This record gives sequence, C-alpha cells and structure tokens, in this order.
Amino acid sequence: MTERLVVIGGDATGMSAASQARRRRSASELEIVAFERGHRTSYSACGIPYWIAGDTNGPDALIARTPDEHRARDIDVRLGTEVTEVDPAGGRVRSRDADGREEWTGYDHLVIATGAVPVRPPIPGIDAPGVYGVQTLGDGEAALLGLDRTEVRRAVVVGGGYIGVEMAEAMLRHGLEVTLVDRDEQPMSTLDPDMGRLVRDALEGLGVRVVSGVTVRAVLTGDDGRARAVETDEGEFPAEIVVLGLGVRPGTDLARAAGLPLGAHGGLLTDRAMRVRGTERVWAGGDCVEVLNLVSGALQHIALGTHANKHGRIIGTNIGGGYATFPGVVGTAVSKVCDVELARTGLLEAQARAAGLEFVTALIESTSRAGYFPDTATMTVKMLAERGTGRLLGVQIIGREGAAKRVDIAAVALTAGMTVGQMVDLDLGYAPPFSPVWDPILVAARKAADAVAADIRKA
Amino acid sequence: MTERLVVIGGDATGMSAASQARRRRSASELEIVAFERGHRTSYSACGIPYWIAGDTNGPDALIARTPDEHRARDIDVRLGTEVTEVDPAGGRVRSRDADGREEWTGYDHLVIATGAVPVRPPIPGIDAPGVYGVQTLGDGEAALLGLDRTEVRRAVVVGGGYIGVEMAEAMLRHGLEVTLVDRDEQPMSTLDPDMGRLVRDALEGLGVRVVSGVTVRAVLTGDDGRARAVETDEGEFPAEIVVLGLGVRPGTDLARAAGLPLGAHGGLLTDRAMRVRGTERVWAGGDCVEVLNLVSGALQHIALGTHANKHGRIIGTNIGGGYATFPGVVGTAVSKVCDVELARTGLLEAQARAAGLEFVTALIESTSRAGYFPDTATMTVKMLAERGTGRLLGVQIIGREGAAKRVDIAAVALTAGMTVGQMVDLDLGYAPPFSPVWDPILVAARKAADAVAADIRKA
Repeated sequence: MTERLVVIGGDATGMSAASQARRRRSASELEIVAFERGHRTSYSACGIPYWIAGDTNGPDALIARTPDEHRARDIDVRLGTEVTEVDPAGGRVRSRDADGREEWTGYDHLVIATGAVPVRPPIPGIDAPGVYGVQTLGDGEAALLGLDRTEVRRAVVVGGGYIGVEMAEAMLRHGLEVTLVDRDEQPMSTLDPDMGRLVRDALEGLGVRVVSGVTVRAVLTGDDGRARAVETDEGEFPAEIVVLGLGVRPGTDLARAAGLPLGAHGGLLTDRAMRVRGTERVWAGGDCVEVLNLVSGALQHIALGTHANKHGRIIGTNIGGGYATFPGVVGTAVSKVCDVELARTGLLEAQARAAGLEFVTALIESTSRAGYFPDTATMTVKMLAERGTGRLLGVQIIGREGAAKRVDIAAVALTAGMTVGQMVDLDLGYAPPFSPVWDPILVAARKAADAVAADIRKA
Repeated sequence: MTERLVVIGGDATGMSAASQARRRRSASELEIVAFERGHRTSYSACGIPYWIAGDTNGPDALIARTPDEHRARDIDVRLGTEVTEVDPAGGRVRSRDADGREEWTGYDHLVIATGAVPVRPPIPGIDAPGVYGVQTLGDGEAALLGLDRTEVRRAVVVGGGYIGVEMAEAMLRHGLEVTLVDRDEQPMSTLDPDMGRLVRDALEGLGVRVVSGVTVRAVLTGDDGRARAVETDEGEFPAEIVVLGLGVRPGTDLARAAGLPLGAHGGLLTDRAMRVRGTERVWAGGDCVEVLNLVSGALQHIALGTHANKHGRIIGTNIGGGYATFPGVVGTAVSKVCDVELARTGLLEAQARAAGLEFVTALIESTSRAGYFPDTATMTVKMLAERGTGRLLGVQIIGREGAAKRVDIAAVALTAGMTVGQMVDLDLGYAPPFSPVWDPILVAARKAADAVAADIRKA
C-alpha cells in the first residue's frame, strides 16, 4: 500500500527529508507532498547577506533545487500553500492555498520543517518602508530595491550578531555610512566580551560606527512614511535604510497549537532519530527544533543551514526505512566581516558557568602561516578547559585568512571529548604556507594545559 | 651540583630542547652546551623552497633564533664544531672545532638531534657545479647564486616528493623550462596513485614536464665542468641547473657508531618520553628518530619540522624535571604547488595493506565554499575506512585555496579513533564563504560510511 509523507516547509530540512526518503522509496511506495507557503524551495538564506553585498548573484543562484526539479523526482511541491493546522491524532494537516481554498491532507509520516521567524520587536515604525529583514529571498530583493534609491546614504543595522555584522559589511560595500546599534555590551555576543571587543575594533576599523548597550525604541518615519532614523534610549541615528538583524526564534506556532512538545527555547523536542517526542510518525528538524549541545549537556536553539540539512537527511533516511540519528552539536559557527574572520565552538565563559562547569582560559596570538611567509596574518585564539580534568570546553578565534576554519580542529576534539593536554601534540598539517611550525591551536592548547596544571597546583 | 646538558645539532629539536630545559632550570643548576657543525641555529629548512621561489626573504628571515640569542639565554652554542664520537658508557662526546682541535666533553644529559641527510645517489656528476640540494641555508644560497647565471634556462628537478614539487614551482617562478624526473609511477608517492595523477595534471597544467618511472643514471657535464643534462634510462634531459629532491634519511651515523639502537628505517629508537631505548640519559628527536604511526601501529621515519619542534620541547621538559611524552603521529602532511594544495593524513592504500588492514574507499568532489560563492574551487577528497568497523584510516585532499588544512579535521578524528559514521554529523564550521552546507569532509565521510555498509551487506 502506498504511504503518504507530508512535509511542512520547502526549505533545507523539509526538502532534504523528502529527497532522501525518495532515494530510498519509489513513488509507488511513498507519495510525497510538500507544502511551502512561499514560492521557492531549497534556498540558502545564509547567502542573502553576500547577495546583498554583491559577492554573489541572486536570487536564483541561491536556490539549490527548484520546485520543478523536486517535482521531476515525484515530490508534489505545493507552493503558495500554507499549512494552518496540524491534527496529530487524526494524522492530517489542513492547508490553505493562494486562492484561499482549504483542505485536509492525511499523512502516514509528517515532517515539520517550519524553520525560524525573525525577531521583530513591536516598536513604532518597524513595518515602515525602508526597514528590511534578511530572512527570505523576498527580503533580499526588497533590500536591494531599497538600496537602489538615490537618496539612500546612511544605514542603521539593528543587532550585532552574525547577520547584523554581515549586513554591516554589505551596507559598507554599497558605499553607505553604517551605524550598528546593539543592546549588548559588545557586538557578537556569540563570542566572549574580550573576543567581541576585537570584532568591534575590526568593524570600527572598517568605518562602521558601533553603538552598544542601547535599546531601540522606534523607527522614525518622514513625511513620505519611509524610515528616516532609528530612535534609541541614547539618541537618534538617521538612516534612509534600516536592516533588522535581531536573530530568530523557532517557527513553532503551528506545533504549539497542535499540542506538540516544545522546549524552553520554544523549539520542538525530538528524540535522537529526529522524531517529535511523544509521537510515532511526526518528525521535525532544522531551525524549528532544539538540539543537544554535547559540551553543556543542555538543549539549545541554533538556526544554521548545516544542521537543517543534516536533520533533513536523517529524517528522510528513517522514513525511508533506514536508520540514522543526530548526535547533537558542539556549537560551531564561523563568519567574516570584510577580511576579518571569526569562529567559535563549544562554550563561551557564560555558557560554561550556566552549565555548572568550572574552567581555566588561555588566550594566545599566533599567525596563520610561518612568520616569514608573505601575507602572514595574526590570529587570536581563546581556549576554555575544564578545571582538574583539562577537558576542552570551547575555542574562539579571530583573525584573517586561514583563521576561521581552524575551529574545526577544536570541533572534532570537543566531539571526541579530548583534553587540552591531548591536543598539544595533535599531528596537524604543517608547511610554511599553511601554518607556523606550532599551529595556533597547538599553541593555545599548550597554554591551556599549563593553566590547568597551574590551577591544580594552586588548589 | 651543576649538571651539564650536551646537545648535538643546533636546529629545531636540539635548540627547542635546550630552550625548554633552560626555562625550567637556571644556569646554576644546568649548564647547556650545544654543538653545531654549521654556522646557524634554529632555522626553517622547510622554508628554503619558498625562499628560492622568491616568496620569502632569506636566509636571515628563516632563522627563528640566532646563536647569539641562544647565548643570551646561557646556552653555550659552539658553531663550526662537529661531534665526532659519542661515548654513552663514559657519558662524554668528542668534538672537533673549525681549527681541528678535538676535545671530550662530559654530559649528564645528552640530546642527539643530528637531523636527516639528503639522499644523494652515487652517480657520476652528482657533485658537479650546477647541482643543488635543498637541505641547508647554504644550499639555498648556492642555488640562488646558480640561478643568477644568465645562461640558466632549463632546470631538471630530480624527485617528485614534497621538496621536488615545491622546487619545480620555484624553478618555474624563475622563468625556467622545468622537467621533473621521478622514478615512481606518479609524482607525490606520499599520495595514492589516483590522487598523485591529479598532482601530475596540475604540474603539467603549470607547464612542468613530468617524466615518471625513470632512473637517473648520471649528471652529464659540459666542457666547463658544470651540469649540462640529466641522463636517465629513458634519455637525456638538458639542464643548466639540477635540483635534487630525493628525500632524506635519518642522520644517525654517529649514533650507529656509538652502538645506540636503530630501527628498520635507520632512525634512533626512543621510548615515549623521547629517551633513546636502553639508555638513561640520552635523548633523541626530530629527523633522526623513528616515530610511531598511531594508525598503522608501525614505526616510520618522517622528517618534518613540526615533529622536530614537539620532540625538542618534550625532551627539554623531561630534562628540566617535568614530564612529557610524544604520543605518535598520524602521518599528516600538507603542501602546495602554485595554487594547487595537497594534503594527506593516516594511511595510503598501500600502507594500510602493509599494516594488515582491509578497507573500503570513497572518492568525492566538492567545493571549498558554497557553490554560489565567488572564488569557489573544487576539491577532491579520498577517504579510507576499515572494513567492518568503519574506523577512519586515511584522508587525501587535492584542491585549491582552503583545501589542504581541512585535513586537520581528519587528523583529529584519526587521533580519536573515530569511525567514518561518527564523522558524518561532525559540527564543522559552516558559512557560505567557508564551506558548502555539507563540508567536503562530511560528504566523503557519508560516502565512506555507505561503502562500509555496502561491503558488510556483500560479505
């Protein structure tokens, strides 16, 4: 008998799940229906800042697989169709298409891949023309149209996280005066404040005005109704264009209404196989779920395309009759602003404390290549190691070319539960164009191991 | 009572050991005498090809610490002084200085850091003017002087390993016609033949003539006594300059004469603390020892600056009253020729077979960044996994910018004994400028895990 898989959300998780299930089960065994309320599938939201900056083309280049490509593989993609209700007991979902027609569709397997929704504070003017989000390809198109207007001279970016920092660069590249306003003490609160300070220095060095520790009260509009300034508790910042980079929250309104289990961060709770807890045939993944952080042992919400793709593949494998599980994350993230690269994995100081972990830290400066090599740039590496055991807890890196992806070394070491002492003699690739004779990660591990020993002697 | 540490060899291992011992023990506790038969200390031989290519200055820039800098830290560096005999029973070494004066020096601790000696086949003409090695800073100076001669138009590089390939690039950069002659089937026998083929293609694409599977019989000289061609079993290759890149062997003549234990590859055998086996106060490290390969379980000889520095630090820590051990290597190496990067870690197919390991392989093509990102380059990743267990056995990578250092991910995974299945969901750094949503290493791990499963089903 033919079963039916219903997918809610046509982006990374949903369509990866559909594709992977299709690889394992033919159309005669498994009918696949994917509801997408927008008009595109499988696109890279992570690419939007680079598209706006002019690094890449868009929006088509950011689409990994079009609806028609999915349809050619017997996946019934229904665009412009929003799922308005999930009925887990009845095994069906209610959808409404662009013409307002509603219908119920039964499922044998359901994948909830509803992604994340951007945070938009309910302040006056937030919906005014000239205010742009960076979530959908439509947002990107709107922002680019907005940038084309000749009177645009100044941009305010609200929010100093990855998207905010990337968008600050994009605005610079359009020749605008850029102000970044942020409620935190430093931009990049995904780094410790001492490392965030380096990002702030880098942004300021590029000409971005960074205003930290302020609360945005309103977007002020002009006589034409368009944004003209951002009002904060520390004054007004004029801007013909306002970019919102305030992060996202799990898009789980539908799941909540259906009584499905949500965690403390608002994301769906799943088991290891990415099945929604307490259900038998409902699966969820990507930006709408919470994931286990292997270092802290706690659940967290991380919206990141690489996790979303992995989740989709795992779900599709399981629905397709295979077996796959998601082990969890260690909290790796990389980004760049102009030629400054930043990376982190594991826990920040505050996260480690919140997890009940005590630690020592090491901070070192080294270089990306042998010191005598041309284009050698300095990089700063911060490492956290657990008191007593010396277990690696986290790494943060700020540097230039060749800095960010070194964080992968630490990501694997965290996954393996290595101590910083075990990392000192890791056999990392060495040649003058690629590394000093002691890779910066080894230098940091050495200093962290010394700090662990010093702490033990002191105790 | 003051003890005396005697060091033989003033480069990476010897001077790292001396410096680290000095950090832990003052001159009143430990006298340190370092014999160096040349006139420089602590230099980067790995940098010589880049110096000759014109990437870096030399020779001073390649010196990490001069003799006077060592002397300022109470290390008695004796240049131009060769140790001619080690007397382990008597605890003394005999040295001869530049004036031919010989003397015995007693030691409480001895560090043998005699490095490696370049392979120079005993063929006619090998010592003719115009034939250059790439081992010492003096070799580099000589080669650069040779290149300055106006009649130099063609170079033959003998040997297709790291040094040979790097020197082929250096010769190209001097505008010469370059022929690389090599006795192996493919250049880069440190890669599997299928991957070495890609290096060959890259070299040929750069304009290097690659002649494989030939034996060099002689260097032919002209009326002026200088090299004019390289004669092989497949004909003559004219050259005004001949570069020898035939690899190195452990420099252990002194150790052999002293009756110290050598392994099958001619290197000194040490315990985990880098103490020479069977001795109490003789230590050795760097290019003159054999190291344990953690993947094959066998000893091997690897001449690489990063190991040499680690060994020196470990030896110095132990002599200084601390405790440190060297865990072994996983066989990581990275290199580049023009903009082609190559890397390997773990075992090649032939090495795995020699270790009694059966395996499956996976070969994938992916990209260094998101496909839509500018300057995205393809990279080829080959992965070996053990039959049945799926344990990672080795990784080889060939690509362009961003390819080589990804091998570090696999180096850590090998050290941790991970399976390719465990690697599929590694939380590696993802952002469009740094990686596709599935990092190439993850794609390879996925395909290798599938190959392991297919092999199990078949069996």
